[in-house]
Amino acid sequence: MAKLLVLYKTPADPAAFDVYYEGTHIPKAKKIPGLRKYEVSRAPVLTPAGPAPIHLVATLHFDDMKSIGAAFASPEGQAAAADVATFATGGAEMMFFEDHEV
Amino acid sequence: MAKLLVLYKTPADPAAFDVYYEGTHIPKAKKIPGLRKYEVSRAPVLTPAGPAPIHLVATLHFDDMKSIGAAFASPEGQAAAADVATFATGGAEMMFFEDHEV
Repeated sequence: MAKLLVLYKTPADPAAFDVYYEGTHIPKAKKIPGLRKYEVSRAPVLTPAGPAPIHLVATLHFDDMKSIGAAFASPEGQAAAADVATFATGGAEMMFFEDHEV
Repeated sequence: MAKLLVLYKTPADPAAFDVYYEGTHIPKAKKIPGLRKYEVSRAPVLTPAGPAPIHLVATLHFDDMKSIGAAFASPEGQAAAADVATFATGGAEMMFFEDHEV
């Protein structure tokens, strides 16, 4: 399996972010081809030292790295990525990798 | 469910890191009470723009945030956290949160 993590830094207006994410971004992102499972954090995101500078963590599961490449290249993936730029006012970090249970 | 993510930044010696992580850290971390599932990335960790400055992503699953708090407070959790300081020569970011499937 492979995961795409999206770490959304704390936005200017967290409440507005949440409304948009839930109502608009999730439905868009769920259309990405090859998406097997989509998990979203509930606030708060914490670190051992206190609140994290991250508002929301999204974990998108795919079969493998090739599927993530194909997802980014698809019209639905492009639309979801373009959408992120419209509401992620604090910025977002994206990373993807294969992983395995140990 | 709740997740503890550990993002290990690229260490000074990635090969030595891997040997230590696999042979020493995983067995220590697997003793943490309340740990339900433990996943580890395989290199490389990528971003849409190319290689990420992250060498390894560990995802530790627990029942809830309370269990993560108890895990950090336990002797096994303390030992695993202290161990991180010995091999994470590039630094590590830790964050934890409840999440749900959408």
